[in-house]
Amino acid sequence: MFEIKSKDGLGRTGVLETGHGKVKTPALMPVIHPGKQTIDVGAHGAEIVITNSYIIYRNPELREKALRDGVHKLINFKGPVVTDSGSFQLSEYGEIDVTNDEIVMFQDEIGTDIGTSLDIPTPPGVSHRRALKEVEVTLQRAEEALEYRERMMLNAVVQGSTHPDLRSYCASRLAELPVEVHPIGAVVPLMESYRYRELVDAVLSSVSELPPSRPRHLMGAGHPMIFALAVSMGCDLFDSAAYILYAEDDRLLSTEGTHKLENMQEMPCSCSVCMDHTPQELMGMDKEDRRNLIAEHNLHVSFAEIRKVRQAVYDGSLMELVEERCRAHPRLLDGYRRMSAYADLIEKFEPRSKRSAFFYTGPESLGRVEVHRHISWVRENLRDGTLIMRAPEKPYSSNLSLGKVKYVSEKPLNDDSLNFAFLDIPFGIIPLELDQVYPLAQNDAPLLRDLDSEEFLRKLITEFRDKIALEESLMGDLGVEFPSGYRGEADVLVDDLRRIRMIADYQFGEGAGEALFDDDVRIERSRKTGKIRHIYTNEKLICTMRASDGLLVLSAEGAVRLHRGKGYPANRVVVNEDSEPFARNGKSIFAKFIIDCDVNIRAGDEVLIVSAGDELLATGRALLCAEEMMDLNYGQAVKTRKGGF
Amino acid sequence: MFEIKSKDGLGRTGVLETGHGKVKTPALMPVIHPGKQTIDVGAHGAEIVITNSYIIYRNPELREKALRDGVHKLINFKGPVVTDSGSFQLSEYGEIDVTNDEIVMFQDEIGTDIGTSLDIPTPPGVSHRRALKEVEVTLQRAEEALEYRERMMLNAVVQGSTHPDLRSYCASRLAELPVEVHPIGAVVPLMESYRYRELVDAVLSSVSELPPSRPRHLMGAGHPMIFALAVSMGCDLFDSAAYILYAEDDRLLSTEGTHKLENMQEMPCSCSVCMDHTPQELMGMDKEDRRNLIAEHNLHVSFAEIRKVRQAVYDGSLMELVEERCRAHPRLLDGYRRMSAYADLIEKFEPRSKRSAFFYTGPESLGRVEVHRHISWVRENLRDGTLIMRAPEKPYSSNLSLGKVKYVSEKPLNDDSLNFAFLDIPFGIIPLELDQVYPLAQNDAPLLRDLDSEEFLRKLITEFRDKIALEESLMGDLGVEFPSGYRGEADVLVDDLRRIRMIADYQFGEGAGEALFDDDVRIERSRKTGKIRHIYTNEKLICTMRASDGLLVLSAEGAVRLHRGKGYPANRVVVNEDSEPFARNGKSIFAKFIIDCDVNIRAGDEVLIVSAGDELLATGRALLCAEEMMDLNYGQAVKTRKGGF
Ligand SMILES: [Mg+2]
Ligand SMILES: [Mg+2]
Ligand SMILES: [Zn+2]
Ligand SMILES: [Zn+2]
Repeated sequence: MFEIKSKDGLGRTGVLETGHGKVKTPALMPVIHPGKQTIDVGAHGAEIVITNSYIIYRNPELREKALRDGVHKLINFKGPVVTDSGSFQLSEYGEIDVTNDEIVMFQDEIGTDIGTSLDIPTPPGVSHRRALKEVEVTLQRAEEALEYRERMMLNAVVQGSTHPDLRSYCASRLAELPVEVHPIGAVVPLMESYRYRELVDAVLSSVSELPPSRPRHLMGAGHPMIFALAVSMGCDLFDSAAYILYAEDDRLLSTEGTHKLENMQEMPCSCSVCMDHTPQELMGMDKEDRRNLIAEHNLHVSFAEIRKVRQAVYDGSLMELVEERCRAHPRLLDGYRRMSAYADLIEKFEPRSKRSAFFYTGPESLGRVEVHRHISWVRENLRDGTLIMRAPEKPYSSNLSLGKVKYVSEKPLNDDSLNFAFLDIPFGIIPLELDQVYPLAQNDAPLLRDLDSEEFLRKLITEFRDKIALEESLMGDLGVEFPSGYRGEADVLVDDLRRIRMIADYQFGEGAGEALFDDDVRIERSRKTGKIRHIYTNEKLICTMRASDGLLVLSAEGAVRLHRGKGYPANRVVVNEDSEPFARNGKSIFAKFIIDCDVNIRAGDEVLIVSAGDELLATGRALLCAEEMMDLNYGQAVKTRKGGF
Repeated sequence: MFEIKSKDGLGRTGVLETGHGKVKTPALMPVIHPGKQTIDVGAHGAEIVITNSYIIYRNPELREKALRDGVHKLINFKGPVVTDSGSFQLSEYGEIDVTNDEIVMFQDEIGTDIGTSLDIPTPPGVSHRRALKEVEVTLQRAEEALEYRERMMLNAVVQGSTHPDLRSYCASRLAELPVEVHPIGAVVPLMESYRYRELVDAVLSSVSELPPSRPRHLMGAGHPMIFALAVSMGCDLFDSAAYILYAEDDRLLSTEGTHKLENMQEMPCSCSVCMDHTPQELMGMDKEDRRNLIAEHNLHVSFAEIRKVRQAVYDGSLMELVEERCRAHPRLLDGYRRMSAYADLIEKFEPRSKRSAFFYTGPESLGRVEVHRHISWVRENLRDGTLIMRAPEKPYSSNLSLGKVKYVSEKPLNDDSLNFAFLDIPFGIIPLELDQVYPLAQNDAPLLRDLDSEEFLRKLITEFRDKIALEESLMGDLGVEFPSGYRGEADVLVDDLRRIRMIADYQFGEGAGEALFDDDVRIERSRKTGKIRHIYTNEKLICTMRASDGLLVLSAEGAVRLHRGKGYPANRVVVNEDSEPFARNGKSIFAKFIIDCDVNIRAGDEVLIVSAGDELLATGRALLCAEEMMDLNYGQAVKTRKGGF
């Protein structure tokens, strides 16, 4: 049972419920060796652990104890226990002494919370033919496992080697099975050899076909350097043997990489191990004491990073964290750069408004989905005859210099009916009317521009040259020319009605502005900031503009107008009959009661809650995107506003 | 008394000795309020603190206690205590009730370890005229303070507002005074408003004129986000009131920025406060308990970052850390981007070899001094008729594909006398002979290139078009054309003698290769790696090639040859008469005994140690650069190799 709590791109925080309690995700599951564990990982923050059922199965003593007392007693951990099936051993040694039915039933018998079928961990770089053949075995075993399991939840592992199409195929087939968790398998060789670009392809081609309602486990990912990137690709669970394996080898983990103890003059973190010891002291200790302390440090660092990642998802600053973390190694940056190829996938899960600003931290930032989304909007909506001006300090429209703007254009324009926009990094062309809307206002970029930024702007101007005029002084900066070279000058006008209508169109889709606002609206402004606050018609409130993100919150009247003006299923979340009275009473909408919705809905959107007959029941703020609303069976999907209809 | 221990660019680790003990630098000095301190900063890792003498002076009770028991007892701290003079109050309130002589003498009387004259903290953005006038007052007060101080060390603060020429002027004048530490003042307003580009100008225009033998204190810098960047600009000391001021306001520091407690769902670090509490628990506490815990967290994070920065200097990975940290805010990245304008300054302090690889993490990396230095070398040394080839995996020359390379060039070339080089990011053109030399071999970059990288390569090809030929298949990738378009093909040859001579020239300067190696050298290779290890003539060892960085270590014979072949002062460190016998006996050379040296020496270089009469005494590895050798009076400057002459 998995519930999504907050979202940022494909990343999410959530709660995974098991027979042994709830776990916050993303979660790191320390690997416990069933025979020789020396570290109490629970004491260092582990809420869930993973151990290997095959090792238990093969060792008569462990096996007997596990069958008698259960796996939780065996490894002395009270929370949820995940078990792997021995496929790691299969990948290492080529064969193992157990069949799929034996190991699945064994896991169930010893009380595993989440067990795993015996998948085939196809390594990177094998032929398509072999990878496909092994995927079919993996699929068959996952299917069989459903028959053998009685109580436990089931992992169904995505394989497919380095063939993205096979990853997608495997994931789409597994998505049809009633399993609970999806590990993404056989990626350790990619991580070990810094092939992060291929890792990104393997993960995203899997995630694209996995149901958002199930947690995904990036198998073997235990280095804190990778957590942020992995979560931004939609991974929820990690397992770490790294904490102890690296410790055996006197290596300390950090989000910037790995430190060898012998090269250390300073302890590089704020954990209790680093506060209480020097590298020299550790070097002087017994091997075992040293290993245990380093393992503790490794756990501290790893759990701190998991918490930081969860906080970043909640804050909506996950991509900023990823962009920092990916500087740890150029190949990690390579992997992140590759992510921009998946912008269409990520866009479906990306909230339209977040708590934190968009930070441009390098050319990669131009590949972020927020930019991709806005440029798509500009392509469809930029008005013919738009004068593109140099961006002043934000908020742009408050810092405009007075007087006429001289421009150059490809065709003659009517100075009195121009539209206005600003040219800036990272969002390219920002219509004046949208200059306070998230994220077009809530962003920052260095003033010293890199070439990708310059080229990004130049290309936009070139793409839209037939629709726009360009402020004269920008021509030289950008190095663009308009051969026809019409010249003119215009006064920049800020029209409130145009502004609110365009914001409505931007937020709810074309036509919303006309539907919501009559020509004679009355606008109330904040006394402090001068910004638009409330919009009325005939003394009836239509909507409020939220100060934090410049988006519109509908009143009852606004909802009625939007509902009337935009046909089904636009902006709608449709609930089943049973939940109609709850919706009318302002109760939040749970995902499982949603029977349909507008595919364009994203987390954070203002939505109309309607009945199957498209009767308006309430308004609210989406907590999930359309795809999640349709797929999830647990948790809230819409936070309903008070005052039904 | 200040000693440099390790170096990376302008950054250094060192030891500052005071009357109350030694302090490792870079160091963070928590600000202690003399009247109302509640946190025992020593218990959290502070080795040195700063407090405000003006507050003590103005409060009769504190003043009396300080005069009676000393400032250390007053603030209950046994280590070194720095005091500020009240100039902060001057900047805040416009005037204060004390004169320069009074406050300097007072600081001396209460036993301050490092006291400060009453400088004028000129804010950013004032006129050049006013800033200059105030700099003159600051200079005069610094000079006067020398007369008033009896025991304490003296801070002489660099001012000059946002006028780099005045910062340089002020610093160059202060450099002439026998003071001990140089704060860089009045930069807090720049940091508070994220004007990091101007901060970089203010700091580097100061540092460029300050003697490397004295620690520099970036006044008011207490946010851990800035430490790495500041150290990379040559700052050694920081003071933090931030730990407590932010805590008062329920804000938690981190290297990625600042978190407001009310927005936190997770504690974002591995310190004991974050391990033992949740944000909810903290929110529920008394204001004072909460403040103290947050202040503790803030100190933990700040000291951990200082340790991490020191480790990075030691590792030679400081710039990689800076490039990560600067993603915390686009304006911080802006500041870092600005640093490339100071490459000539930084180059003088940059070691030629480091323990860690060069990581390309964005267009900024092309502005790093290592790249700047190599491109300067290429400009002077690229041979006419060099065939530039696509770079295979590193080491390039071991992964060459067999067969002839087709090329295009601007002029006809002789296929039998071509030189060979590889084209790659970040070092542009890498002669085949240098493909194992640091950092040309020890680096990594993403495979998905940004436009700055592409343009960097294109410009290099264009710049050297008259000297080079380009592998045919690269023409299209780069989008360059050779109008004359001569074509040819060549076999790539790897010649050992050319290789070792070019390495010697690269390392020791032109002519070194000829001086060291006769045509009949014998080369011994490593059995494991096949790499060159030892080079002999007539069974005499000339030098050894170090596996870690591909550079040459001279034997006695090699030293004699280099000394004979290259005239004074090339590669020399000249020691005074007293230290001649020590040098001959293989004892390390202390900075204070050095009377002259080659200005091209950098830390890590192999050097010849000679007498005033240019008699060869020994060889060794420089620990400092030329400028430091001449300026420092404490600590080792050259680690001498055994076996004198
Ligand atoms: Mg690094
Ligand atoms: Mg950030
Ligand atoms: Zn630690
Ligand atoms: Zn903490």
